[in-house]
Amino acid sequence: MGVGKTAPMALPTEHRQVLIASLPNGRLRTEDFEVRSAPLPVPGDGKVLCRTVAITIGAGQRAGLQGSASYAGAPEAGRVMGGTGVAQVVSASGGRLRVGDLVWGQTGWQEYSVQQPEALTVLDPSVLASDHLGVLGLNGVTAYFGVTEVGRVQAGETFVVSAAAGSVGHVAGQVAKALGARVVGIAGSDEKAAMLVDLLGFDVGLNRKSENFRTAFRAATPERIDVYFDNTGGDLLESALFRMNQRGRVVCCGVVSQYDTSTPGPGPRGVPGLLVNNRVRMEGFLVFDFEPRYDEARRQLSAWMSAGSLRALTTGYSGLESAPQAFVDLLAGTTSGTPIVQVWEA
Amino acid sequence: MGVGKTAPMALPTEHRQVLIASLPNGRLRTEDFEVRSAPLPVPGDGKVLCRTVAITIGAGQRAGLQGSASYAGAPEAGRVMGGTGVAQVVSASGGRLRVGDLVWGQTGWQEYSVQQPEALTVLDPSVLASDHLGVLGLNGVTAYFGVTEVGRVQAGETFVVSAAAGSVGHVAGQVAKALGARVVGIAGSDEKAAMLVDLLGFDVGLNRKSENFRTAFRAATPERIDVYFDNTGGDLLESALFRMNQRGRVVCCGVVSQYDTSTPGPGPRGVPGLLVNNRVRMEGFLVFDFEPRYDEARRQLSAWMSAGSLRALTTGYSGLESAPQAFVDLLAGTTSGTPIVQVWEA
Repeated sequence: MGVGKTAPMALPTEHRQVLIASLPNGRLRTEDFEVRSAPLPVPGDGKVLCRTVAITIGAGQRAGLQGSASYAGAPEAGRVMGGTGVAQVVSASGGRLRVGDLVWGQTGWQEYSVQQPEALTVLDPSVLASDHLGVLGLNGVTAYFGVTEVGRVQAGETFVVSAAAGSVGHVAGQVAKALGARVVGIAGSDEKAAMLVDLLGFDVGLNRKSENFRTAFRAATPERIDVYFDNTGGDLLESALFRMNQRGRVVCCGVVSQYDTSTPGPGPRGVPGLLVNNRVRMEGFLVFDFEPRYDEARRQLSAWMSAGSLRALTTGYSGLESAPQAFVDLLAGTTSGTPIVQVWEA
Repeated sequence: MGVGKTAPMALPTEHRQVLIASLPNGRLRTEDFEVRSAPLPVPGDGKVLCRTVAITIGAGQRAGLQGSASYAGAPEAGRVMGGTGVAQVVSASGGRLRVGDLVWGQTGWQEYSVQQPEALTVLDPSVLASDHLGVLGLNGVTAYFGVTEVGRVQAGETFVVSAAAGSVGHVAGQVAKALGARVVGIAGSDEKAAMLVDLLGFDVGLNRKSENFRTAFRAATPERIDVYFDNTGGDLLESALFRMNQRGRVVCCGVVSQYDTSTPGPGPRGVPGLLVNNRVRMEGFLVFDFEPRYDEARRQLSAWMSAGSLRALTTGYSGLESAPQAFVDLLAGTTSGTPIVQVWEA
């Protein structure tokens, strides 16, 4: 350790990382990743060393592994897998961060990382790490701005969300409900569909894999759809386009149906014809554009949680080495809510 | 004629109509229509009889003939083909309309029609009927609101329009140019592409059928695309989606590539993924929603015409019986600007 740095914690000389072993071909497999040990990194001047507490995984990260352009960039084989996590500062150099601070940042899939202080957000340690990464993390904030700023849902409107039991979807539906909409969630199993209603207070939960899905979808949207919050693309987007009301809004948030493949399908029938006929607006957004307003979203989401109108849903995994399995499960649709990989516990 | 009606013109006892002989199967043919004579209709109380002066044809009318839902409804075999025209009032019943008034309305493809007075717009007789049906008609007004209200083009932005030599396209490009945009038009032949630049003042004209179209398209949009005004759908829409700037806007106005067929293709690749990555807004609109503001558009378009910055482009046909051929030509892309079928000349 250099002069002026403090190192009050006992640190190992090595730590574990999960690397991209090879870019996936077809569906993602755990074999596309490998765990290795590496020397503990030494932070350069002005940087801090962080110990990862927990990471989350977004389905959109699979798009980056397709090798084509994506907002997440194009990862390469041999690199540490990127990702968002909560970490604890273990060595600081006298700046605004102190040893022991809980922070949020791009930790990657590894036990320790070196960070620029300005890239980290200091967190309230009294809030669960899983909430920092879920409801109050990028997933929740994405849901918040997608519903309020892109979809602009109004009380009394019909709001439909796909991947509704997912990390973004379960928050989006609850936000729309809190704003007075009639909320229909589409998920991938009967169990999830029931949970949307029983646990999260959605008006209707639908299983997209059920035989009578199309009939049930129509029956669940007797006044058609005002806002469709799309996390999946593909067939569900196409079905929703045929149910949109005039002046309806399609919030394009994610395309999970097209991520876990090397050969994405064509676009939905109904684009652009149905957009014209029903004057539908379809808009893509990325949460990063709302960064100056993250605090606003977190305050509102926290208030709803305190009031009992917003419940956090997570699926937990234990240990860094479980991250590849969590990613595979997420893409296969077997997780609910935000996948949280606990990397370290005090 | 009933009491209180005037009939100063000599009227025939029969007139000609163009009927839908059969809903088209595959590409539209002139044989899908037939001309017949019918007794001159007698207007009921409060209605007026109109003699059609000229009609125009929109490519979107082909969508109605697909038998599926469309804003134009679903025409049936055996009915008079619907359409917009300019007509002269030949018998009126003492309301606000006078015999001899030039009016705009849904005349259909026929020499005479009975109209509700409130469904007619009285026109300035000093303006050409072809301008009333073209630049100042629904086509021009559609272009105006599509560019200003949906695309919201700003000075200095790159504006691309497909079917650029068409009825809506040639006005849209000139409106965007008048508002200070850099304008690229895509048309279906080298001749049309050259005309866009030489006659209409576009910055670039491209022939979508040329071998090097993709290369030329990229070269013509070095700063990518801010507003894409889509009249075609299909491959061009797909190409444009891959060239959109962040925060770009796709104005969905028409889908001419998918009209003249019984088997519309799938939607564009890139929806919704590219909308998300580049935060693109894609919005369908129908001009009817702007009806309270038609006068505003016509005043501005007239001002641009007077100032020499907006040129009207039409392709003329003579006689009602040429309407089917005009429709076939329009869909085949051999017309330029607004197709005008002159039905009657004083």
